[in-house]
Amino acid sequence: MPTLNNLGYYLSGFTDGEGSFCVYFSPRGRMTLGWEVRASFSVGQNTSRPEVLNLFLRYFKCGSVRPNRGDNTVKFEIRSLKPLLEVVIPHFKKYPLLSSKRNDFDKFATVCSLLSQNQHLTLEGFKRIVDLAFEMNGFGARRYQKRYILDSLKMKI
Amino acid sequence: MPTLNNLGYYLSGFTDGEGSFCVYFSPRGRMTLGWEVRASFSVGQNTSRPEVLNLFLRYFKCGSVRPNRGDNTVKFEIRSLKPLLEVVIPHFKKYPLLSSKRNDFDKFATVCSLLSQNQHLTLEGFKRIVDLAFEMNGFGARRYQKRYILDSLKMKI
Repeated sequence: MPTLNNLGYYLSGFTDGEGSFCVYFSPRGRMTLGWEVRASFSVGQNTSRPEVLNLFLRYFKCGSVRPNRGDNTVKFEIRSLKPLLEVVIPHFKKYPLLSSKRNDFDKFATVCSLLSQNQHLTLEGFKRIVDLAFEMNGFGARRYQKRYILDSLKMKI
Repeated sequence: MPTLNNLGYYLSGFTDGEGSFCVYFSPRGRMTLGWEVRASFSVGQNTSRPEVLNLFLRYFKCGSVRPNRGDNTVKFEIRSLKPLLEVVIPHFKKYPLLSSKRNDFDKFATVCSLLSQNQHLTLEGFKRIVDLAFEMNGFGARRYQKRYILDSLKMKI
């Protein structure tokens, strides 16, 4: 087994291939601006090879490993802001990604910081988070289009 | 940029997610047993994110990065036996894979060693290579079924 430091580089390499940094928007009537914003770090893998996901779980000491609905994969995921800020983001600053996924990570880290300052509850902060989120890769898979989210704000203010 | 040692762990992590160890069989009438056997280490990636594949190229100082025919991906690949034996296999012994892909790597290393001893030119050695190759993952994508390859030998001996 590699040392903890070597494992850090290994897991960043694995993340550069299989990991995702995402920001999700869910409609919530009770929220000031009508949307809940959640950040998520996840790593997927075929159900037959869950070993490295369990390694992420032991290394980060937070998150969960669960079957993904609808396909033959399993996912390690952290969605709570506190461990994202205190564990995940410091990890990827110490053991940096070396692909263009680094750009997603940088935007993700900014969004998490804005969320921790409750900036998503202000119109300006929320719009900034929407901009950052939709500049990140993978936005094609999102349920709501950027235009739809921004248009909905007009009815709130 | 991480040190060379840290990069070794990073690239093994990336390989555990995105890499493949394969053994291919191609019909060749002029070969003693009618089949050419080739080993290949490859790492695939979406065309929009070739950075880490170029990192593999610089790190291993062999192989090539090429667009994959038929889909929107690009592939780093080493198919020559000498660099597989002298560079790739020693790398993954020093910086081990931590998923079940390790089993594929172990079989792959045995096949490469058998090829270097020309064991694929003997009936016994060839059959052992076929057994090992079809125990490795990803055999579903192979062009020829194990039974077809083994049956064809009967006409040769």
